[in-house]
Order: sequence, then C-alpha cells, then structure tokens
Amino acid sequence: MKINIKSKTRDYEIFIENGLLKEIDNYLDVSRKYAIIADDNIPDVIIKRVINKLKYNIFINFPHGEKSKSLSEYERIVNILIDKGMTKNYIIIALGGGVTGDLAGFIASTIFRGVDYIQIPTTLLSQIDSSVGGKVGINLPKAKNSLGSIYPPKMVLIDPSTLEYLPTKEFNNGVAEMIKYGLIHSPEIYDKIKSGNINDNLEELIFECLKIKKHFVEIDEFDTAQRQILNFGHTFGHAYEAFYNYEKYLHGEAIGLGMLQVISPELKNDLIKVLQKYALPTSDPAKKEDLIKFIKQDKKVQTKGINIVLVNKIGEAYLKEINIEEL
Amino acid sequence: MKINIKSKTRDYEIFIENGLLKEIDNYLDVSRKYAIIADDNIPDVIIKRVINKLKYNIFINFPHGEKSKSLSEYERIVNILIDKGMTKNYIIIALGGGVTGDLAGFIASTIFRGVDYIQIPTTLLSQIDSSVGGKVGINLPKAKNSLGSIYPPKMVLIDPSTLEYLPTKEFNNGVAEMIKYGLIHSPEIYDKIKSGNINDNLEELIFECLKIKKHFVEIDEFDTAQRQILNFGHTFGHAYEAFYNYEKYLHGEAIGLGMLQVISPELKNDLIKVLQKYALPTSDPAKKEDLIKFIKQDKKVQTKGINIVLVNKIGEAYLKEINIEEL
Repeated sequence: MKINIKSKTRDYEIFIENGLLKEIDNYLDVSRKYAIIADDNIPDVIIKRVINKLKYNIFINFPHGEKSKSLSEYERIVNILIDKGMTKNYIIIALGGGVTGDLAGFIASTIFRGVDYIQIPTTLLSQIDSSVGGKVGINLPKAKNSLGSIYPPKMVLIDPSTLEYLPTKEFNNGVAEMIKYGLIHSPEIYDKIKSGNINDNLEELIFECLKIKKHFVEIDEFDTAQRQILNFGHTFGHAYEAFYNYEKYLHGEAIGLGMLQVISPELKNDLIKVLQKYALPTSDPAKKEDLIKFIKQDKKVQTKGINIVLVNKIGEAYLKEINIEEL
Repeated sequence: MKINIKSKTRDYEIFIENGLLKEIDNYLDVSRKYAIIADDNIPDVIIKRVINKLKYNIFINFPHGEKSKSLSEYERIVNILIDKGMTKNYIIIALGGGVTGDLAGFIASTIFRGVDYIQIPTTLLSQIDSSVGGKVGINLPKAKNSLGSIYPPKMVLIDPSTLEYLPTKEFNNGVAEMIKYGLIHSPEIYDKIKSGNINDNLEELIFECLKIKKHFVEIDEFDTAQRQILNFGHTFGHAYEAFYNYEKYLHGEAIGLGMLQVISPELKNDLIKVLQKYALPTSDPAKKEDLIKFIKQDKKVQTKGINIVLVNKIGEAYLKEINIEEL
C-alpha cells in the first residue's frame, strides 16, 4: 500500500507492506551512502535486514527512551557523524520508534543545514503517527519538543511485520494513538479497536490511520490550525509525561489519560472501557492544578490562551481557544 | 531602498535606509512581542533605538565573537527564552553582526519548531551578506556551520548609519566580502572599492551587493549549485579560520586570504593591492597541506570531490568540481 504526502518543501511517499524490510533494496538506492541511527532496543534481526543490503553506511546506536531526546544526545551523535566522515551526500535513516524518528529527524534537519532522511518506524506508535508529517525535535528539561522543526522525510518505509518483536505494552502504547484517530475522525476505526479486532488487519488499520494523518498534515503542514486536531489528548498528555519527568508513562499511555481529561462526559465511560481493554491507564493521582503548570510552559500556549481539541461525538473533533483557567 | 527576496518558504523584504532604526516603529508591529538577541559589542545607543519603541520584549545578551556560535551558547539562550516565558507568538530580533544573525536565526528556526525572526544587521559584513538568504547555524568544534538550516527571516532592516559605531578593522572585514561581490559579478563594484570611494555612497553600495545576493539566492535557495558562487574564497577562508581556531582572523580577513588562493594568477597582484588598501591581510604562514585537512572536514566536501569557485576575469565566476588533491 502506498500513500503520497504533499508538502511545501518536498512531497514524499509512504510504503506500507508486510515484509518490506526484507527487500529494502527495492526501495532504496543501494549505491548511496547512509547513516543509520537506531536505539538500543531494536532487535538485531531488524537492524540486519536494513544494514546488510546497504554497502556504504555509518551505524549509530543510542539509549532507548524519551530521555535521549536531549541536546546532549543530539550533540554526541552529530559529533560522531562528523568524526566518521559523514558529508552532505549521506542519507540519514531513522530506524526505531518515535524517539528515534524525532531525534534522527532533527539531526537530519540541522546537520550541514539539512540532509535527506528516511523514516523506518518499528513501533505501532511511530508507524501510525510520528514517522509521517515531518515533525522532528528534542526536549528541553522544562519543555517537551521545544526544539525542532517541520522537516519532511524523503520516504517512509513501514513494515508491520516488525511489530511481532514489540512488547505488548509498547504495542498498546500505539493503540492509544489509534483510538485518538477513531475519536477525532473515524467511528469505523474506533469500532474496530473496540471490538478487539486489531491484529487481524493491522496493515489496513495503519493505512487508514495514515490517511487521516495525511488529511490534517496536508491542509495545515505548519501546525497553525487544523493540524492541531491531531493533538487531541496531547495538552494534558504532555503534562502527565512532564509531571512524572518522562519516567512513569509511555507517550500513548499519557495521551489516553489526556483524552479522558477533555472528552465529553457522555463518551468518557466508553473510552475508559476501550482503554482498559488494551491495559492502558485510566486514572492518575496527579492534581489538575499541578498539570496546568506544565501546560503553561508547553509550546502550544498562545499569548491569549490555549487551543484545545474537543470531541463530543465519535469521529468529530473541533478546536477551541480557551483561557488556561477554564481547563 | 527596498529589495524583495523570493523564497520557497516565505518571501521577505529588505529595507535599506540611513536612520531607519530611529523610526523602527514604522517597520515593526509594536503590539507584538519580541525577543531581542544581541551580542555585547553593540553600542547602547543602537540597542535603545530598537528596544525603546517595543512595548513587550525579552532582551538577551551574549559574548561577541565566533566562539559564541556554539551548541553551549545556543543551549544557554534557548533555556533563558523558555524561562522568561517566550511562546511561539514571539518574534526574534537578531541585532548585531554575522554571528548574532547566525545564532539567533538558528534559535528562531528551531525553538517551538520555528518562530518568525527579523534580521537587524549592524556590521558591514552582515548588512551586505549574512543577514540575507536565510543561512543560519552554529559551529561544531571540528566543522564551521555544520549545524544549521536555510530559514528565511520575516524581514531585514538595514540602517547603514549604525556603521559609524563600527571599528575600522570590522568595517574592512565587510569590505572583503564587498570585494568578493565585485570579483564574482560586478566590475563596477570592484572599481568603486579600488578607487577607495566607499563611504561616500555606502547605502547605494550595500544595495548593489544585496542585488547580487538576491540573484544567487533566488536561483538556488538551497545552495546546491549556483549559490555556491557566493562562496568564492570561502573554501580556503574557512580553513584559515579553523586552522587558527577562529582566533587570528575576522571572517572577511580570512576570505581575503582564501580568494588569493584561488584567483587566477593574472588578477592576483591587483587583488593584493585592493586588499592592502583596506588593511586586509594578504599572506599567511599556514601550509597549504594543513589547510587542506580542514577543507576535507568542511561540509562543502562532496563524495566525489569538492566544488570550488574560480574567477579568471573580474565580474565572472564559475563553479568547478575538482578532487581535493588538485587544490
């Protein structure tokens, strides 16, 4: 399956195929030079599928987890790339989950004033979300994703068969974002997840999620209006992550809690049941006023107030600007 | 005087007027919020002209000089901006010379995934060159400008009267880049500089230089071909700067030496005379083989070799790909 994304900077294609990585040389020009950046959680078998077909490459490993989206890790990797002789002609490959895509993509957007990069997401979360749309970046201690850019990849290669290697907790982390797509744009996706029928048709579900992502990214690539709909649950979600210093929750887990904070009361119980089905948390002791402190520091805070995404009916979301005090 | 620059991301205007800063409120929306980033060399009188008219602002000072184009200075400033409550709605103002424009522009291109910024260059070098074209960035210890992007400003405000406060050595630093414009594209500019007749018509000369910059930036914004013509003298120039750890030479001084390394033998003596007229260095003890080590690390090194700019006739430059060994 294939999706084309139109971007102001450059259009690019997403390929979604079970087993795609085994024939990666059908997608990549193997005569080019590559710098592969991967976290230390990626199974060797996946790394080998990518590397073995590429004659010229630099391979860099970094510690998995949100903590690696830091300026110090960024600095360490760019210095290694320079030391290993990388030039502007290299193509960076981001091999891994959302953290890898964000970090390696930010490196690609800034090293030598920008080089091409390819996203090869290996988690459900990154396959349906972060690998597409060009958002890359790292965190500052006080603000998540506060350094970054909108820098579209050259290509996105999605092999759903890599998800066999994913721990259940990580898989469910992705399901939370899938639930989000259902809630904001597709009752069909929401119903499929609710029925528990995900694994049977994963390739198709990923495709459907990415079509929604395509829709919002193309109408508002630079995230000034409608694209923010994709942030449903993220205002409080990011606050939960930051409040616990990125240690307690995976991103999707926090987004699940964040959606519960803003969904309409009529839908709340149904959402709780769906989240529980995938062992996602549905309550947390953090106080709202403490979370709001983190929201104020978040980049989405505008001068006059904050844009929040609301869902009153499954499949229909809208943006509303409110004062932070109204939260 | 006014020049419009067309860019893939956003078009922008350059205003060139003596005394412009005294009426900065004619150019800027004073109801917006600004974050002004300036080095500690800018005279107070210039800072006040900018700040006094702006109701809402954050002001950040940093140590002048190339050493501040570092990841550590970048990190220090972005953390201060976050601490002072900057949001995505702020506009960054880069007030100062080339280092300020590069550093503040790189911050603007990455903070909150990119905010608007305005270049207010206060040195001759930055007024005729670095403030226009969107190249922003910082250095890694082993490679100049190795982190950055092409990120066009929202506006460029040039007040040539600020150059009254510039030390002669700094002014001549800019003259070196003016000589470069003459050599690559305009015998008229070269002759005016040669005649010593710069100060009489500075506003006009800045305008003429920027028209050349406009030409190259618009035909090749992302610096993959013709824009590299603007790098005449820069391959060796950067190597001189790096060889002496950015301590011995100002940028323009190093570019003067760099031009002498690659200009055709027939023009060399004439160029030496012009450089000497502005107290710019015309010889240096560094060995060519040592410089070439630095050139190999420079980002402009392509896989197969290196693109070099050659001038055999005043006003006419061309690009040539050569092996590094041929230098």
